[in-house]
Amino acid sequence: MSQHYLSFNGQLIDATNQAVYLLEDRGLAYGHGLFESILLYGGELPLLERHLLRLCGDARKLGIPIQASLIKRYLNQFLEHLRSAAVDKGVVKIVVTAGVGGRGYQSPQKIEPSIICTHSILPEHIAVQRREGIAVRYCKHRLPCNSVLAGIKHLNRLDQVLARREWDCPDYQDGLMFSVTDQLIESISANVFLKNADGRWLTPCLNDAGVSGVMRSIFLEEIFPECQIPIEVTEVSADELALCQELFVCNSIRGLIAVTSLYNFHDKLVKSLPIGEQTLMLGSKLVKKYPHYQ
Amino acid sequence: MSQHYLSFNGQLIDATNQAVYLLEDRGLAYGHGLFESILLYGGELPLLERHLLRLCGDARKLGIPIQASLIKRYLNQFLEHLRSAAVDKGVVKIVVTAGVGGRGYQSPQKIEPSIICTHSILPEHIAVQRREGIAVRYCKHRLPCNSVLAGIKHLNRLDQVLARREWDCPDYQDGLMFSVTDQLIESISANVFLKNADGRWLTPCLNDAGVSGVMRSIFLEEIFPECQIPIEVTEVSADELALCQELFVCNSIRGLIAVTSLYNFHDKLVKSLPIGEQTLMLGSKLVKKYPHYQ
Repeated sequence: MSQHYLSFNGQLIDATNQAVYLLEDRGLAYGHGLFESILLYGGELPLLERHLLRLCGDARKLGIPIQASLIKRYLNQFLEHLRSAAVDKGVVKIVVTAGVGGRGYQSPQKIEPSIICTHSILPEHIAVQRREGIAVRYCKHRLPCNSVLAGIKHLNRLDQVLARREWDCPDYQDGLMFSVTDQLIESISANVFLKNADGRWLTPCLNDAGVSGVMRSIFLEEIFPECQIPIEVTEVSADELALCQELFVCNSIRGLIAVTSLYNFHDKLVKSLPIGEQTLMLGSKLVKKYPHYQ
Repeated sequence: MSQHYLSFNGQLIDATNQAVYLLEDRGLAYGHGLFESILLYGGELPLLERHLLRLCGDARKLGIPIQASLIKRYLNQFLEHLRSAAVDKGVVKIVVTAGVGGRGYQSPQKIEPSIICTHSILPEHIAVQRREGIAVRYCKHRLPCNSVLAGIKHLNRLDQVLARREWDCPDYQDGLMFSVTDQLIESISANVFLKNADGRWLTPCLNDAGVSGVMRSIFLEEIFPECQIPIEVTEVSADELALCQELFVCNSIRGLIAVTSLYNFHDKLVKSLPIGEQTLMLGSKLVKKYPHYQ
């Protein structure tokens, strides 16, 4: 490799410094990587296996060869470090990138992934939101149709960043995102389930856009079946959303959060919603199986 | 800010280390940032003003407040450093990100951008390519329709990375990318101009996808008019491309590169092309005005 010359915020960086890896990492340059946000509870990562299954499977789609065993080894060291600092709850984020190398967009012959673990505190008000539900706002920014990248929790997240910039007040706790063809896809940071006007439970199919969340798969595979409530993965139009009877968002940090009011992007109330009986049942089942979402 | 806990490739990172800024940078987390690749020639950056104009304008669209004067200050220090190391040619890349902070996708109240400068050597074979032209291949991967992000040289470049992964042999020097609606948009790392079957020069409009390149603007604003060749910015279908008489790609590193053969993604030759008279004229005009593309 040729001599490296680098500067960060005006400061020249010694190429022997570890920072060199990050300044030239393909994760930063192109978003060539993926991430997982995992709930830390009692010093453990209860859903780790599901997160790693998704991460390693999707990494292959981006051409990044990664062994779950290596991530686990790094994570165990990291959790040990957190325990020694008496940190036993919060969010552990894993970022896996295609590392340094390649020429331009071309991937290196042999990708050596970068694996980054960080810890952050739990989002604010999570307990209140689980109990009382949240208000959400329609986002004007649309998710593009990209069947190859759909489902993957990759590092190209400008659509979510731009959507979240649409409001700055504390009145809304999440935003709903639609496709360019007016189909509901997900919220900015969670998946969406709703009970439509006919009483059928639906969740948007993610063939063209959206992130296939770990909590979404738990609801589809375990919680709905165990509550004996049929659930359909299908297209959900904005019209169907506006007529729904119950609505919740879910992700692996927040668990189930009911939506109690829906606003459009002109800040007009579209609908108020009760926390319905079946939403309560689904939430109880989740907490019974996975008490860390209490 | 709360205590930070970080690990990179299994190594715990001291939060006082500069690496902390990069591990948690929104450029890495979300691709919330932009970049410019600028030709370094004789220790100078001849097209710097145009690059900075685009960078600062597009940064605003992503909510990143950045002063050209600050980037220039950092760049001048960096160029000084390169000169002292007797490095006077190559590519200087500037990355500007939204820095550290914010909660999840939400941008921080006050964005403090990260500004990264790196140097790399010129792409291989650039002189031969300028003289003899290149073979290009159609990419199977499609560019999604995203009118808000179209034109911006942002850090969400997985589409280009995936397109470039479609071939691994040295037979093609670039790939042509199409929209989901089968319109030609650009090559993986350059813009495209063509002379169609009727003898009209066209370049794809970039309202829905693509990067609005600095060299593209020089061709549109200066080179075509000064050669008295009319040029239209319009939709260009795959069919129109297959029937073209002359074709070139351009970017601010390579200048003008004629395309002399076109292959589809089954590696079948679509068309061989001469380096046409008008392509030669446009190339000569470019080199006359900007001798660093010789």
